[in-house]
Amino acid sequence: MGALPQPAPAGACRVGIAGFGTVGQAVARLIRELAPAELQLTTICNRAVERKRVADLGDVRWTDRVEDLLDGEVDVVVELIGGRVPAEDWIRRALDAGKSVVTANKQVIAHAGPELLDRARRAGRHLRFEAAVGGGIPVLRAIEDGLAGDRLSRVAGVLNGTCNYVLTRMEGNHRCSFSDALREAQALGLTEANPAEDVDGLDARAKLAILALVALGLHVRPEEISCRSIAAVEPIDFIYAKRLGATIRQVAWIERDRNGSEPAVAAVGPALVPAGSRLARVTGRENVVIVSGEFGGETAFSGHGAGGDPTAVAVLSDLLAIARSAAPPRAPRAEPSAVSSDLVGPQYIRFTVADRPGIIAELATVFARHNVSIDAVLQEPGCPPARLPFVISLESCAASVVNRAITAAASLDFHVVPPLVLPILRPAPASGAQAPGAV
Amino acid sequence: MGALPQPAPAGACRVGIAGFGTVGQAVARLIRELAPAELQLTTICNRAVERKRVADLGDVRWTDRVEDLLDGEVDVVVELIGGRVPAEDWIRRALDAGKSVVTANKQVIAHAGPELLDRARRAGRHLRFEAAVGGGIPVLRAIEDGLAGDRLSRVAGVLNGTCNYVLTRMEGNHRCSFSDALREAQALGLTEANPAEDVDGLDARAKLAILALVALGLHVRPEEISCRSIAAVEPIDFIYAKRLGATIRQVAWIERDRNGSEPAVAAVGPALVPAGSRLARVTGRENVVIVSGEFGGETAFSGHGAGGDPTAVAVLSDLLAIARSAAPPRAPRAEPSAVSSDLVGPQYIRFTVADRPGIIAELATVFARHNVSIDAVLQEPGCPPARLPFVISLESCAASVVNRAITAAASLDFHVVPPLVLPILRPAPASGAQAPGAV
Repeated sequence: MGALPQPAPAGACRVGIAGFGTVGQAVARLIRELAPAELQLTTICNRAVERKRVADLGDVRWTDRVEDLLDGEVDVVVELIGGRVPAEDWIRRALDAGKSVVTANKQVIAHAGPELLDRARRAGRHLRFEAAVGGGIPVLRAIEDGLAGDRLSRVAGVLNGTCNYVLTRMEGNHRCSFSDALREAQALGLTEANPAEDVDGLDARAKLAILALVALGLHVRPEEISCRSIAAVEPIDFIYAKRLGATIRQVAWIERDRNGSEPAVAAVGPALVPAGSRLARVTGRENVVIVSGEFGGETAFSGHGAGGDPTAVAVLSDLLAIARSAAPPRAPRAEPSAVSSDLVGPQYIRFTVADRPGIIAELATVFARHNVSIDAVLQEPGCPPARLPFVISLESCAASVVNRAITAAASLDFHVVPPLVLPILRPAPASGAQAPGAV
Repeated sequence: MGALPQPAPAGACRVGIAGFGTVGQAVARLIRELAPAELQLTTICNRAVERKRVADLGDVRWTDRVEDLLDGEVDVVVELIGGRVPAEDWIRRALDAGKSVVTANKQVIAHAGPELLDRARRAGRHLRFEAAVGGGIPVLRAIEDGLAGDRLSRVAGVLNGTCNYVLTRMEGNHRCSFSDALREAQALGLTEANPAEDVDGLDARAKLAILALVALGLHVRPEEISCRSIAAVEPIDFIYAKRLGATIRQVAWIERDRNGSEPAVAAVGPALVPAGSRLARVTGRENVVIVSGEFGGETAFSGHGAGGDPTAVAVLSDLLAIARSAAPPRAPRAEPSAVSSDLVGPQYIRFTVADRPGIIAELATVFARHNVSIDAVLQEPGCPPARLPFVISLESCAASVVNRAITAAASLDFHVVPPLVLPILRPAPASGAQAPGAV
């Protein structure tokens, strides 16, 4: 349409919603219920919009043309259509038309956030995306503003409520397998359309990339963050984890090098976390984000990471921030940053073998050849010898070295199931100083 | 001095610090270390300032005259002298002289916050006080902005790290008495100059009054919030609490009436909280603030509630917010609000008696006369009959009714120690709906 940028409105800020699904409907209802003087819902855009039309939203324009969001009756576009295409393009068009944008779209911001923020800055408009990470938890705002006075070095979190539901179900009931727990989560409507997005970590890594941008000023490409699936975790792993004073969570974390000379280390996947730690204490669908600052130490934010209403609260808070502020805030500037997944720390390896004499000796030889020290060998009694799970925990070493050792051990003849390697995250020291992989 | 209001600076925002103790020094060091382009430390004011002077802060004016903070070389005054007098007056003078103000002073804001915010609004200046609640946890900012899109109904928190240290020490070691644990906290430098401020709840209730203002828009006078000391809690109470599936924390909470027809209910004091709940999971000196919204459900913020560096992070974040924003935000407006302490819920009462037959019967008669239902009677084996602690838990009833029953029971002849009454806070329901006293 090429509409010219509109001046900021003298009166209420006029809102157009793109995408009238669960979250879009919740946003509209919240605006109606709370009726903030600063906001006026003027336009709702959805494909085949007639089947979405509801009577109680008052004088709203219903449309299926994105162009109607770019005209003079809209000051802020709320993008809730999801997915990268065509959402990313719509956001660009809205910014270019002089609209501010609020979005809950984690994939778009994870991939194109820095470019879109730059575009917003040039247009003198806002781009806000609190709802893209942690649903109703106002973590981006708290980091960006409330921890502005610290030098942040690390973010760790449980960012996917579905994985956390599945893992805490298995933790609570050792007869509940991964697939049982996942089926439960699906029955409760917790999973994405494609559950691999949750289970394999793609959802969490998009959120981690956004946190890296806002908290650490790093522009990390989500594809470069190593992801490991929680699908290989078995109930027996919770029993062994407990013997090691730990439990298992899908953890997303990124940590910058203190001197800035090495790339940041980032990963998403199942990990052993100390029993009683902040990450372990997150149960069910809850999310938590833990931020470590050089001066303020650890600060944690937890709550409902998803759901129509909590997400709508985040969208509405962004809308109010735009309506109440004269000028857009300084957007975080970030240069593209490489990340490594080569975390150094202790490791948990669960082998499942057809038992025979000499297995430990053969594995010990492989680890010795790779210069890796064994910390402990654990074996629960009562398991069938034809499919015997046991655990070797390793002293601190680089993940890459462990992977080489595991590859070498793969040719041994006793494996029934491929070995499962999980990093063991350690408690953060009491002082401000951070150990690598500390939680 | 009557200096005229100064225009906002074209360049960096010039900062004057009043009070160069632990936090003041940490703020100065943080500005030097992080060197944000938006801030310039120009003035440090302290009594007998010569003994405070340090060489590494560069070109700073050292003074013991508050008037030097009100002249043309200062845009923002950071008030860190503590106490109400003369801090409150200094803040007024600074605002009247056209300065913005950042303070960590919980007592001043709890008592005079609404008036000072109004004064700041009229002067077109900022008044920020993130450091007054929860030290380094950016909870006020997160509530004010990040949860702006919700209707908040309840705030509950562990707001005093000293009390939490003492109670979690007693929880972890049943041979550690209240006075042992308090002595430890004092040796670690955790307590206020007068430990009664912590132990009796005066510190926590000032913070609760500030949270009530920011989260609920209620102007509650701190004196009207009922406080009960943790000093009467004994190790045996943790044993009984555990039998009831709970532990004990100093909890500060306030909850508004849903219809706005009744006054809000607020209190500070020891309470039973469900084992594994967010309040129970706070250990050591940690603080947590849990906010309940009608749409977003519960959101929790936890971290270092005190300490020079975390508090300085909060001060610096406030300074950056002022330096980066064109206009002061809308200050919360609040009319003076009455509060009730008459929480309705189940109750825990620990009696310590010289044992003889008939005690339970006599107490049961008193409770029956007050129309209060007994839920359970618990008695640990192995206690000396001359000083026998046992517990009666009551079904849900108003605190005022229980207090009347306890007063009536006080005349009975078997008490060795006055009974200890603790409210039993219940887990919040999974849905958005809140039960009274839910945690």
